[in-house]
Amino acid sequence: MLNVAIVGASGYTGLELIRILYRHPEVAVTCLTSEQSAGKRISEIFPTLRGRCDLVLENLEPVRVAEKADVIFTALPHKAAMEVVPTFLKLGKQVIDLSADYRLSDPQTYGAWYEPHLNPANLKKAVYGLPEIRRSKIKGAKLVANPGCYPTSIILGLAPLLKQGLINPHSIIADSASGVTGAGRAAKVDSLFCEVNEGYKAYGVGGVHRHTPEIEQELSLLAGEKLMVTFTPHLLPMDRGILSTIYAAPSKETTTEALIKLYDKFYSGEPFVRVLPQGSLPSTSFVRGSNFCDISPLIDSRTGRIIIVSAIDNLGKGASGQAVQNMNIVCGLPETMGLEGLALFP
Amino acid sequence: MLNVAIVGASGYTGLELIRILYRHPEVAVTCLTSEQSAGKRISEIFPTLRGRCDLVLENLEPVRVAEKADVIFTALPHKAAMEVVPTFLKLGKQVIDLSADYRLSDPQTYGAWYEPHLNPANLKKAVYGLPEIRRSKIKGAKLVANPGCYPTSIILGLAPLLKQGLINPHSIIADSASGVTGAGRAAKVDSLFCEVNEGYKAYGVGGVHRHTPEIEQELSLLAGEKLMVTFTPHLLPMDRGILSTIYAAPSKETTTEALIKLYDKFYSGEPFVRVLPQGSLPSTSFVRGSNFCDISPLIDSRTGRIIIVSAIDNLGKGASGQAVQNMNIVCGLPETMGLEGLALFP
Amino acid sequence: MLNVAIVGASGYTGLELIRILYRHPEVAVTCLTSEQSAGKRISEIFPTLRGRCDLVLENLEPVRVAEKADVIFTALPHKAAMEVVPTFLKLGKQVIDLSADYRLSDPQTYGAWYEPHLNPANLKKAVYGLPEIRRSKIKGAKLVANPGCYPTSIILGLAPLLKQGLINPHSIIADSASGVTGAGRAAKVDSLFCEVNEGYKAYGVGGVHRHTPEIEQELSLLAGEKLMVTFTPHLLPMDRGILSTIYAAPSKETTTEALIKLYDKFYSGEPFVRVLPQGSLPSTSFVRGSNFCDISPLIDSRTGRIIIVSAIDNLGKGASGQAVQNMNIVCGLPETMGLEGLALFP
Amino acid sequence: MLNVAIVGASGYTGLELIRILYRHPEVAVTCLTSEQSAGKRISEIFPTLRGRCDLVLENLEPVRVAEKADVIFTALPHKAAMEVVPTFLKLGKQVIDLSADYRLSDPQTYGAWYEPHLNPANLKKAVYGLPEIRRSKIKGAKLVANPGCYPTSIILGLAPLLKQGLINPHSIIADSASGVTGAGRAAKVDSLFCEVNEGYKAYGVGGVHRHTPEIEQELSLLAGEKLMVTFTPHLLPMDRGILSTIYAAPSKETTTEALIKLYDKFYSGEPFVRVLPQGSLPSTSFVRGSNFCDISPLIDSRTGRIIIVSAIDNLGKGASGQAVQNMNIVCGLPETMGLEGLALFP
Repeated sequence: MLNVAIVGASGYTGLELIRILYRHPEVAVTCLTSEQSAGKRISEIFPTLRGRCDLVLENLEPVRVAEKADVIFTALPHKAAMEVVPTFLKLGKQVIDLSADYRLSDPQTYGAWYEPHLNPANLKKAVYGLPEIRRSKIKGAKLVANPGCYPTSIILGLAPLLKQGLINPHSIIADSASGVTGAGRAAKVDSLFCEVNEGYKAYGVGGVHRHTPEIEQELSLLAGEKLMVTFTPHLLPMDRGILSTIYAAPSKETTTEALIKLYDKFYSGEPFVRVLPQGSLPSTSFVRGSNFCDISPLIDSRTGRIIIVSAIDNLGKGASGQAVQNMNIVCGLPETMGLEGLALFP
Repeated sequence: MLNVAIVGASGYTGLELIRILYRHPEVAVTCLTSEQSAGKRISEIFPTLRGRCDLVLENLEPVRVAEKADVIFTALPHKAAMEVVPTFLKLGKQVIDLSADYRLSDPQTYGAWYEPHLNPANLKKAVYGLPEIRRSKIKGAKLVANPGCYPTSIILGLAPLLKQGLINPHSIIADSASGVTGAGRAAKVDSLFCEVNEGYKAYGVGGVHRHTPEIEQELSLLAGEKLMVTFTPHLLPMDRGILSTIYAAPSKETTTEALIKLYDKFYSGEPFVRVLPQGSLPSTSFVRGSNFCDISPLIDSRTGRIIIVSAIDNLGKGASGQAVQNMNIVCGLPETMGLEGLALFP
Repeated sequence: MLNVAIVGASGYTGLELIRILYRHPEVAVTCLTSEQSAGKRISEIFPTLRGRCDLVLENLEPVRVAEKADVIFTALPHKAAMEVVPTFLKLGKQVIDLSADYRLSDPQTYGAWYEPHLNPANLKKAVYGLPEIRRSKIKGAKLVANPGCYPTSIILGLAPLLKQGLINPHSIIADSASGVTGAGRAAKVDSLFCEVNEGYKAYGVGGVHRHTPEIEQELSLLAGEKLMVTFTPHLLPMDRGILSTIYAAPSKETTTEALIKLYDKFYSGEPFVRVLPQGSLPSTSFVRGSNFCDISPLIDSRTGRIIIVSAIDNLGKGASGQAVQNMNIVCGLPETMGLEGLALFP
Repeated sequence: MLNVAIVGASGYTGLELIRILYRHPEVAVTCLTSEQSAGKRISEIFPTLRGRCDLVLENLEPVRVAEKADVIFTALPHKAAMEVVPTFLKLGKQVIDLSADYRLSDPQTYGAWYEPHLNPANLKKAVYGLPEIRRSKIKGAKLVANPGCYPTSIILGLAPLLKQGLINPHSIIADSASGVTGAGRAAKVDSLFCEVNEGYKAYGVGGVHRHTPEIEQELSLLAGEKLMVTFTPHLLPMDRGILSTIYAAPSKETTTEALIKLYDKFYSGEPFVRVLPQGSLPSTSFVRGSNFCDISPLIDSRTGRIIIVSAIDNLGKGASGQAVQNMNIVCGLPETMGLEGLALFP
């Protein structure tokens, strides 16, 4: 039985971690922290948990947290994570960090998109936690940098093509849309129900969204050369889900059949990636609350462009689900343990 | 291991049964039927299931279904259920019927609200499957009539008061609202997204909704005298959830504290009823996807009326969750088995 | 041509006033104020207005505002309104106050539900601005207290019955539900999209909502005796609309036909009240963006209770639409001027 | 005063035409037809209209319709339109056709994407009704082919660039998303609330959506050479609105400032196109219920791609609003007459 702490438990990714771990047979959640709500029961913040998880939220005192847990999930804003992760590592704890702090291997890049990095030493030890392309490295990692939601949907969508050199790596356009949980639980006018409901918009257009360097880092590694992408995020009037529609120029002629075959092979044996049969297309509805990533690659035979559509739950495979998958890997547990839940539909 | 069939699997209650049973450690789903979609895989209808449950939907041939299953859930429209349930019972199968066909103990009443009853013989053997008030009878039942969604929320909301004679049984007004899954999955203009979205309305006002006699039957039994209720359903622009706000005149003075204490005691030990502490109120959000019923009783001290607010997921405790709870009871399994899932929020 | 100022223009009722007045042929909007956003163009806050209304928001300096306008709408929180209204009145301006400050004729009652009243002198001069029951008094008023949204839907729903003495005035239960615009535009966690979406809950249960004394004041006047009501508000996962389902005990036998006839007569000639024919029921969808109140009275013949269902747009007839209707009345303009817009559906 | 008929009035575009024309000072709606609901009042189908427009729906008998109207809007499915339009034209009526039947100038192309064209003779006379690029031709037209919703958003987004030769015409990718009203009002499972709500998906991916040839026809004319586009539509969980995010390769270096300047000039004087200032981006929320098209062009300076974001209401500028704009033009009325309504927000 693993003792697990969730640092930053009063946000949506924290809640989703608790929801998943509650049904994980090898985990006991022993410690939850929240700066804003310390002293309250987590079930006062999230009444879904009432009677099932009524732990009292604690202040974030790293040493005390470490005393209570073998594995620590840090579900904090960027910067806040790298202020505490070093302590957890020093005390020998296994850390799964859901922030952006350890995702970019180059501290210069981190500095350019976020702010000066405080902990480059551990950055070197961190493993980017996308199991489908890094499983073997994750196995031995003490610090897993859990991927961002948009990057997960885009990297999984492109990995087979880039790995095989089947597209021009400089032709990639990723057009993505996310549910509002992606904006977190902070009180701001832009996230009010009446501001978001019944509307749809692009934001961070033109290469300014912070997930851009993360996407480029991983795609460059897959391609074997440095590439840049055009990435446009959009905000959807719904709670959960990310759908990415990705465009690329093939480097040689292909067909939808051949593409599906390629993806089927690449993801064969993967428990959480479903390559859809021809004629089907992903919807965020079909992965909501699950750890699945559904993918459809196809060719626009008129213009010759390859189009890949991928869908995840941004709180599932895009955050907390994937974090538990990473925990299972680093702890030597069956990778799907606790993640068997089917999507909730409708 | 129980072999389980779901008759009428291509509706929303059918899907919810599959979703729940997929994680039930003592159940194997062996047979799914659908008149409209026979021959297709269930995962073509509901892509959430892809790769996890890909059974082919069969025509409803009762004898063949019975050969494959120990327990049969009938998730059919009324009338269609009582056309096949007798065969299942004759063949010695355990039946959990989610339709209205075996809920009203008096076939005359059924005839008045629905149509002539085809199977009064089995009606006598059926047990109304609300575990919190009928657990001991459910234990030995071969045929469980799974309660309606509105009735579940209202009966659980009033049981402690009626049982103790604390309200005037003729003063009850139940004002309820349901998500759109309650209207089923049939293609009709009234259930189109654009007809329902961003709107709220009452329907079946004035004592004409078919859940009325079911509510009255059970409340009358609890009160020990025949009573009638004013019941007004409303349609909410959301997928899942029922909230009932119930009004009644107390038969003697009381306080909110006393009411909560009474409810706490009445539901003490119940795994799926949560009586909320003073100051909290139920929301459908907090039970979505779970088998919980959250309840708050209180007094309007200015007008002296008692108000009870109760919330369930209409597909959970209001249908498929409760059906699995009943299956656990009749089959001698732990009552919460397979139903441990926490609500999905957001 | 009337020069009009809107004080507190950066909230939803402010925006709705601008939207309506923009098409009013006898109005020029000359001044908008906002404490938080002074110096910005209103069209930066609400890009719907871009190119049509680009006024710069001003600080609330009452004398300067009064210089620019003949009619002043105060769309401020309670207390803030009564801090500036006296100045406007002293300077001879016509005021339509959308806050709660001048709705309760008894300053003691105001004090009990809000806080000590700062301006009892003008309270005496204020007229409660529900045209259907106060038109003649509104005509000569310098200060109109624009009714609350819930009260509008409930008072219009009950006026014909109370006026005729057809119900027991002590039997009234009003069960209402509102869209989220009713909660305003302030940044708070409770109004975040993900907290509200796909959920439904009661709030302020048990006679504690501040609209209660307003409802009781007006219903008491109609009934000719002091009465109290049980009023339960609920929060709907949608932007606009209030639906009230109201229950009362008839004082003598009646029928749905007779009730509709009564309502038809009572509201005959009213441009914004639609009594629906038997068999139809109101929906908030059918009044969204309009100034209509749709009403259906009926009898539950089984229990003998009268049920009235009424629907308005909380920003329309429940706030800004009604405010413009009041302006038309006090300024001697045709009552429907600028309010001809049909509901936006879907 | 123009007498106007709406053929196919019981769909959403029909309703939106009525809503707009109701406030048009020079129009009297004299005839509404509906095959399914003939004999009913339009206000029974759409209770928003009750008391304002209670016309009885008629069967579609072209000669009788023509007797009652000077201008006829055909809001029919494709094929049904070209079965009646010839009669209207023969009788000298002005026709605004909202179907696809007269949009593609080449009957071969129509045949390839739809079915054999029945009326190529009138096809030659039809003018594609996008005022911003065809105003002068629309003026004299007897038959206006009102543009599709997706094409409107995309053509307006690209016209300034193609006209000036500033992009590679073979590099265009249009990624669009539409609200559910775009799917019409027919009863089908795919459009049910619970199937659509809280989900997002692509459909018609890979160059198979029927708006593709319409987009290509108009963009080719603007570019002065034949081009093809990659067009991907998506379905949004909301009622109204289309947002298109369009990607293209510049043919020479440029800046966001220069692009906005170009667009400002191109659309200068246009009453319904708003080019947003730098730093702002369109949202469907800001055009809902209006006839505006909001546009932001910008450059992704990292990858050098041009991105244009455009937003319309699919029922407004994407259908009925634009149809009324066309009517105003062909009838010599002020172009904005009846279209002054500001967007409804929230």
